[in-house]
Amino acid sequence: MRLATFGDDRIGVVHGDAVRDVSTLVDERGSGISRMRRLIEAWPALGSTAVSDAADRSSPARLADVELQPPVPDPTKIIAAPVNYADHQSEMNVDAHVSALGFFLKAPSSLLRPGGTIQLPYDDRRFDQEGELACIIGRRARSVSPAEALDHVFGYTGLMDITMRGGEDRSTRKSFQTFTPLGPWIVTADVFGAPGEVDLECWVSGEQRQKANTRDLIWDVAQLVSYASSVTTLHPGDVIATGTPAGVGPLAAGDTVVLNLSGLGGRLEVDVRADAAGPSPTTGKDRGPVPPPAR
Amino acid sequence: MRLATFGDDRIGVVHGDAVRDVSTLVDERGSGISRMRRLIEAWPALGSTAVSDAADRSSPARLADVELQPPVPDPTKIIAAPVNYADHQSEMNVDAHVSALGFFLKAPSSLLRPGGTIQLPYDDRRFDQEGELACIIGRRARSVSPAEALDHVFGYTGLMDITMRGGEDRSTRKSFQTFTPLGPWIVTADVFGAPGEVDLECWVSGEQRQKANTRDLIWDVAQLVSYASSVTTLHPGDVIATGTPAGVGPLAAGDTVVLNLSGLGGRLEVDVRADAAGPSPTTGKDRGPVPPPAR
Repeated sequence: MRLATFGDDRIGVVHGDAVRDVSTLVDERGSGISRMRRLIEAWPALGSTAVSDAADRSSPARLADVELQPPVPDPTKIIAAPVNYADHQSEMNVDAHVSALGFFLKAPSSLLRPGGTIQLPYDDRRFDQEGELACIIGRRARSVSPAEALDHVFGYTGLMDITMRGGEDRSTRKSFQTFTPLGPWIVTADVFGAPGEVDLECWVSGEQRQKANTRDLIWDVAQLVSYASSVTTLHPGDVIATGTPAGVGPLAAGDTVVLNLSGLGGRLEVDVRADAAGPSPTTGKDRGPVPPPAR
Repeated sequence: MRLATFGDDRIGVVHGDAVRDVSTLVDERGSGISRMRRLIEAWPALGSTAVSDAADRSSPARLADVELQPPVPDPTKIIAAPVNYADHQSEMNVDAHVSALGFFLKAPSSLLRPGGTIQLPYDDRRFDQEGELACIIGRRARSVSPAEALDHVFGYTGLMDITMRGGEDRSTRKSFQTFTPLGPWIVTADVFGAPGEVDLECWVSGEQRQKANTRDLIWDVAQLVSYASSVTTLHPGDVIATGTPAGVGPLAAGDTVVLNLSGLGGRLEVDVRADAAGPSPTTGKDRGPVPPPAR
């Protein structure tokens, strides 16, 4: 099943080019938690049949007529793997990967809706696209083994880990407002297919920059979820970005960025602007790993 | 006013050794957001007089009889300054401070209640105490100037940024479960006093390790809040840890850690255990800055 958030915290089931609103399934007044998070929490009790039935009772809207939002607009955290493909490690010329680095965190406030606009904040720094597979946590996970880990995954979606190059802490370089496009929707784990066999492609303004398969992840999804759960407690709706393959490169105002993952059934597409960009107030520009030259 | 969270998401006003429950001020059913966050959001409409009046109508409980919780148990993010005192930069022998590094993020799931127990996860790694002043955001802040920044601060509290040494990403090294003791309560900004004139002292098992004043912050609270708001959107209840001064040192099972800040009117105290600690699964041990030797 494909589950989207759209409009003003509505949730719906996507089929073809239509979305059917199932918001009433979790229509609770006064909650500050998004409907998608509440749906994910209620899922084991509701069951997918109840969701399908609710969709069948709902009249369809055209996908093109709704404004998709990040499928989980308010995760309690966004965990991301720093260097999790060998070819990306090579292009960055760094001597450490995920097994030495662990994970980093991105601010939930950096989420961007499908179709949204990445705002580059500075005019004197380089910003790169990084296309990734992300998993969405389905139920609380604390110190789960790799063998148990996928039972705690609700589904999968696309994520762009937009990144400023330089020596600032990763959390800063990757948490600027709009720097985490997410979507276009969640595909539930039962229908997504094996997370270790996903084709990933990413284009910037028509140029294909990334083409990879998640079989080449250094830490696969199960190992990432297990490790993250050994450090923190994972909550329903938490996002884990699995890392980006080779092919990162600079973004400029006017670019469009497109991410496609097999099994997703739709692309995540955003554009890029640099309105009111001025100089960076931090001085990390000439520090940190040197990214590959622009092609 | 001193505001505490205690028991099962109760909020109260602390005076002397008593706490008076004011939970009914934000007694909304079905919300997944903590009462403290809802109180902070409602504060401009409620006004402090309504809170004082509610406290006056409530019968007091002894502070010693309630279990304090992190005053904000569910911030949307915890932002922290990496190297924000010159003497800490010196003891760590690092060539960059906050103005080159920006900030890092800690997982909200790492929060620990006053009186709680830090659990050291590994037996082959060093973990240090870092005592800090933290500010709690009062209202949404996006690109606010340093001159406006303090208007967006609700209050102040104590925070320990417990840290694994090594080469892992800061978010990992500082996000282990229990690694962010917070409290014992929030002192509202109107009575806390100037955040740039706070005496900070931190003891480990009776040994004083840290003694500093926030006048020595490289980026003061206004500058930190302003910068953080230029990168992200700050939400009510978000926590900003201002960094730690010199005197960090290793923790061991059985230790107690005490943080005192002038203006807080109470100490943040936790203890340390290492139940079931095994080897670290990540290999960053011999990477990263070398901390000062244990005294």
